[in-house]
Amino acid sequence: MSVGIDPEQSTIFLQSGVHETYELNLLFEMLVTVARLERIPSLKDMARAADMEESMPFGLLGYPVLQAADILLPRANLVPVGKDNESHIEVTREIARRFNFLYGEVFPIPDVLIGDVPSLVGIDGQAKMSKSLNNAIFLSDSAEEVTQKVRGMFTDPNRVRADIPGRVEGNPVFIYHDAFNPNIEEVNDLKERYLLGKVGDVEVKKKLTIAINNFLDPIRERRAQYESQAGLVEDLLIAGTERARAEARKTMDAVHDAMGMYRLPVRTL
Amino acid sequence: MSVGIDPEQSTIFLQSGVHETYELNLLFEMLVTVARLERIPSLKDMARAADMEESMPFGLLGYPVLQAADILLPRANLVPVGKDNESHIEVTREIARRFNFLYGEVFPIPDVLIGDVPSLVGIDGQAKMSKSLNNAIFLSDSAEEVTQKVRGMFTDPNRVRADIPGRVEGNPVFIYHDAFNPNIEEVNDLKERYLLGKVGDVEVKKKLTIAINNFLDPIRERRAQYESQAGLVEDLLIAGTERARAEARKTMDAVHDAMGMYRLPVRTL
Repeated sequence: MSVGIDPEQSTIFLQSGVHETYELNLLFEMLVTVARLERIPSLKDMARAADMEESMPFGLLGYPVLQAADILLPRANLVPVGKDNESHIEVTREIARRFNFLYGEVFPIPDVLIGDVPSLVGIDGQAKMSKSLNNAIFLSDSAEEVTQKVRGMFTDPNRVRADIPGRVEGNPVFIYHDAFNPNIEEVNDLKERYLLGKVGDVEVKKKLTIAINNFLDPIRERRAQYESQAGLVEDLLIAGTERARAEARKTMDAVHDAMGMYRLPVRTL
Repeated sequence: MSVGIDPEQSTIFLQSGVHETYELNLLFEMLVTVARLERIPSLKDMARAADMEESMPFGLLGYPVLQAADILLPRANLVPVGKDNESHIEVTREIARRFNFLYGEVFPIPDVLIGDVPSLVGIDGQAKMSKSLNNAIFLSDSAEEVTQKVRGMFTDPNRVRADIPGRVEGNPVFIYHDAFNPNIEEVNDLKERYLLGKVGDVEVKKKLTIAINNFLDPIRERRAQYESQAGLVEDLLIAGTERARAEARKTMDAVHDAMGMYRLPVRTL
């Protein structure tokens, strides 16, 4: 909500409070093969990284199925995701198609929406930003924390002095300028001088710090507002979860009807 | 209920009416590896039989996890099963141990209870009784249907005349006598004469028909009673499902507490 998602417009809910998710997940687990899930590249990478190709938890392999339940329970038609989740949404599309083919049209085939910055390199220049790798700037960081993190950022390792021409492409500092600095003239000027060895890292980073802090300021303001109102976020979460459940029940009624599943004539407890 | 399970003593409920099953299933899916489930012999056989080792549905591989949720939701300590499900209960025991180890003692480690007749050969003498193979005597069969099915039963294929000595061991007709005929003297007499070639299949089968019908008669009576009371079974199912849910909620509260899971301060809808 601090980044501007309006809980009046968007339903923010607690996944574990929408019990229908668990049921739809189980039904969907019948509509996809083990082999299909094992082919998903991001899961393979995760398993390899955690050195658990032999000890992959069953639930982790099924994670894209749970995502499909999350997406299709409110019958979503558009899913904003990072680049690395694109292959998961393909599984969602396959499951929706398979369900519709077997039992009748219940689900939309959702499209993927990938932003202008599909993934963002970490401040260490190594991998994408990640909490667990501690190479990220957080939305909750103070202006001081941002200053420090940007000061320590990885740039062009071959540029040991400001008067040596530097590389702009693939340089994290310029990737961030492109993402967060709306002053395109300033960014272009910095890039030109950087290529010619006519600007130091200090100036480039100072201007980046300003740009990021300008970007984060309204977020910090809204965050402080929500934090000052005790219980507000929880109240919004409860209201959102109730709204999500009402929608989830409609979907599950349609699912049960389509599948011809017997239901008790009364709802228990 | 027709076989004598008393709904006042035993809780008979609709699995899909106890939504907590789905949630516990998902949590348990994190506590077992893909490799462990792939080693279960009965699942391997099923996959091979259906020629779908390559197209095994994810949910089918996870079936023993769902069974674990069914068993552990009411914190069962004893599970009556057929021989072929023993390896599934071993998975239940492993999941219960793993949960208790990770989060604290919540679940009992259930024991298996296998009856005197752990599995029963089909009337075709080929495999165990199975509805889909149509080689079974049903609890709902009439006396006439039982007579016909026993008359057509597989016995000793080498015995073409009644005066040829026959084999008793592995002979379906005698396996059924052992299982259903309480008159041990009669069974022993038949076996002796069969081995000597002094009794025909007709007499052996006639006596088996009487034994099976004696076994089924009280079942038929209770079945007719329940059938004559419209809505009674459904009412018992509703009451049982309500009882099962109350128990399931207690278990899930203990699970959430043990795992330290956040819960909304109010129950939604």
